[in-house]
Amino acid sequence: MLEKLKEEVYRANMDLPRYGLVTFTWGNVSGIDREKGLFVIKPSGVEYDKLRPEDMVVVDLDGNKVEGEYNPSSDTPTHVVLYNEFPNIGGIVHTHSEWATSWAQAGRSIPCYGTTHADYIYGEVPCVRNLTKEEIDEAYEKNTGVLIAEHFKQLDYEAVPAVLCKNHGPFTWGKDAHEAVHNAVVLEEVAKMACRCELINPHVKPAPQELQDKHYYRKHGNNAYYGQIKR
Amino acid sequence: MLEKLKEEVYRANMDLPRYGLVTFTWGNVSGIDREKGLFVIKPSGVEYDKLRPEDMVVVDLDGNKVEGEYNPSSDTPTHVVLYNEFPNIGGIVHTHSEWATSWAQAGRSIPCYGTTHADYIYGEVPCVRNLTKEEIDEAYEKNTGVLIAEHFKQLDYEAVPAVLCKNHGPFTWGKDAHEAVHNAVVLEEVAKMACRCELINPHVKPAPQELQDKHYYRKHGNNAYYGQIKR
Amino acid sequence: MLEKLKEEVYRANMDLPRYGLVTFTWGNVSGIDREKGLFVIKPSGVEYDKLRPEDMVVVDLDGNKVEGEYNPSSDTPTHVVLYNEFPNIGGIVHTHSEWATSWAQAGRSIPCYGTTHADYIYGEVPCVRNLTKEEIDEAYEKNTGVLIAEHFKQLDYEAVPAVLCKNHGPFTWGKDAHEAVHNAVVLEEVAKMACRCELINPHVKPAPQELQDKHYYRKHGNNAYYGQIKR
Amino acid sequence: MLEKLKEEVYRANMDLPRYGLVTFTWGNVSGIDREKGLFVIKPSGVEYDKLRPEDMVVVDLDGNKVEGEYNPSSDTPTHVVLYNEFPNIGGIVHTHSEWATSWAQAGRSIPCYGTTHADYIYGEVPCVRNLTKEEIDEAYEKNTGVLIAEHFKQLDYEAVPAVLCKNHGPFTWGKDAHEAVHNAVVLEEVAKMACRCELINPHVKPAPQELQDKHYYRKHGNNAYYGQIKR
Repeated sequence: MLEKLKEEVYRANMDLPRYGLVTFTWGNVSGIDREKGLFVIKPSGVEYDKLRPEDMVVVDLDGNKVEGEYNPSSDTPTHVVLYNEFPNIGGIVHTHSEWATSWAQAGRSIPCYGTTHADYIYGEVPCVRNLTKEEIDEAYEKNTGVLIAEHFKQLDYEAVPAVLCKNHGPFTWGKDAHEAVHNAVVLEEVAKMACRCELINPHVKPAPQELQDKHYYRKHGNNAYYGQIKR
Repeated sequence: MLEKLKEEVYRANMDLPRYGLVTFTWGNVSGIDREKGLFVIKPSGVEYDKLRPEDMVVVDLDGNKVEGEYNPSSDTPTHVVLYNEFPNIGGIVHTHSEWATSWAQAGRSIPCYGTTHADYIYGEVPCVRNLTKEEIDEAYEKNTGVLIAEHFKQLDYEAVPAVLCKNHGPFTWGKDAHEAVHNAVVLEEVAKMACRCELINPHVKPAPQELQDKHYYRKHGNNAYYGQIKR
Repeated sequence: MLEKLKEEVYRANMDLPRYGLVTFTWGNVSGIDREKGLFVIKPSGVEYDKLRPEDMVVVDLDGNKVEGEYNPSSDTPTHVVLYNEFPNIGGIVHTHSEWATSWAQAGRSIPCYGTTHADYIYGEVPCVRNLTKEEIDEAYEKNTGVLIAEHFKQLDYEAVPAVLCKNHGPFTWGKDAHEAVHNAVVLEEVAKMACRCELINPHVKPAPQELQDKHYYRKHGNNAYYGQIKR
Repeated sequence: MLEKLKEEVYRANMDLPRYGLVTFTWGNVSGIDREKGLFVIKPSGVEYDKLRPEDMVVVDLDGNKVEGEYNPSSDTPTHVVLYNEFPNIGGIVHTHSEWATSWAQAGRSIPCYGTTHADYIYGEVPCVRNLTKEEIDEAYEKNTGVLIAEHFKQLDYEAVPAVLCKNHGPFTWGKDAHEAVHNAVVLEEVAKMACRCELINPHVKPAPQELQDKHYYRKHGNNAYYGQIKR
């Protein structure tokens, strides 16, 4: 079942080591079939060089495993919440990629210092607070999703397709698994350059709003003119 | 038309990922035929592993597309201005290479801290100011070129073949597309070492002028003696 | 003798350059057969690309060479002490991996700043003091092991499978040679991200204890639920 | 003539890009035949992927080209002085390797922060002063060698096989071209870790003298016991 989606999610998962975003099994990608209300996700703790398309696990939007030999990723309850709360996304990525995770560990949102960031993410990449002991004990992975969704009530999740979980790491999303991985790569580059630019100039300020707007809207929305696609 | 130039510009574009200067489609190279007054540039938003020589777009010095299936790079108007204002250059490169972009985001010119820099670039790599909202709204990419050209009225663009655009990234140029890429690689190395050398010694000063002169002029001008070329 | 263990230890040694943990011969892995009371270790100063399984050296728990054409690693006496003092470990790794060694040179223990760390190591990675001149002169490598064992009287060596020796470098261990290498990779990632996260936020605090506990215990102990293994 | 030495020096030159120590043509290796009083060096400005053993240039100890189609490296006069002043060395390397050059640009000697450094280099890696304008104008490359030799009157050049030239870059040497490259790799690792360890602990002190002695002398001199070589 969902063979095409499994293949797609498998390939998106394999892109994580290819782009240098994961060590060992420290990451997972999922992709959803919105019509069927089912998503496909990497099995927990299986090494990338042993992974096969047929190992992908099918899960429903209540978090029940529907098909699959393996247990789904231990982060599955986070994916469930995000798919329910963000109706327009089709794929989700979680990694411990080194630069984004360093910002998450530092507990800081990533300011928008330049057009590389503004081309993909409108405004800063938020870092959400730690879960409380109660929230952890009750349902750690689910409440990670709840916290993210809560935070994005003030934000447009389509314009800001990334978040940092304090002392943990990043989640990114997109219209499908492939775009979610693309955004994970963007986030890593942006996180790296933001750190270095603060080293070069400790008093650096975010890029002017008009420059952020220009770059974001030359790639997104009705007046976009970057690339080849007719809109 | 311009088949040889297309091949050359294609190859220069492919050198960007080879040297680690671009992620995804974040860069473009152009090269000009001065006699015909036409230049060749990468199409906008096309991925490097799908790029072919015949995909290159031909543009005239008024910025009109003369030939090509695709839209030219969205940065084409910047290239147009630079070719018009810098009559001795034959190639231009724009990237978001990570170290040069970090300096651009930091809004700082790169001081000449050593001979690696002085071998290729005479004096600091300037960082030009942000465009105003009016300049952005009027014609963002064109005015980026106008701003650079304005800044270089005080500088020798042949001796300083690189610039940083604040909160954006670098442009480099050279006598042809190949040399422009070469200078983009030099800039990246120089930007990396300048950041690290400030970490190692926060009170570091630029290299003495006589050392900068020695290295620049042993490679450039009538008394150059580096390499094999008779001058 | 011990052919299977030699093959296993050989392969674990070859993983060190593969994971970028060693330059030249700067590292060694050993693995033990607890029933026989013998361990197998890399020969001293032999380059990785010339290493063969049959070059591994067999040593007993008094540090005597039992079999092998070559001298065992000069760090063998450290391994001897650790195998005697830590009865549940099956493999040991020593490297000069760049980030862990930078922390060792800095003389600082690595705080637990996030879940990547907490997933594998419970609490900070300790940095033990320098040996005194007397300890060095008496038996440098042996006393390195004695110092580590002494320090771990206050710690659970199974929950903290890594240590830094001041001005020297890291040792890691695990249930076998393979897991010891795995922990060496984890340590390097953790060391890298801890340095960067302090650059991003000089006032960063360790991850909350409840988050550290959650991650450590979702992978270890009776209530673990990460991965596929039934416990 | 000197075919074997040319092959050896060619291979040592090719090791520079292999170890990531050079970009483009920014480095050169030479090796000497002490009996004949002739050394072999890379030609100036020739790219590594076009280099062949027969392109190596033969130079005598007065700096005269004895054989070769190409001009020798522009740094040849520095090599001449070092071979004359350091009678026990057999090979010399110059690079602009990124970390060593960052220290050179910072104008700081590299303190011995750990055993990786002490295993190969006894005490700090000195950074020599800038040449004066007069010294540059008179004979830049020769006077670079004179300055290094002058500095080493207070040091044992066999125990400290590396130097940094302020605002320029490193030179290393060894008993032959191969060992000189080996020391260039060591220097780069040591320079990288020294910078990072100062970031981790800005108040870091050099390794205790007794630890430096222990590591240096377990690899060098009559009581060495590292590796397999009988002394």
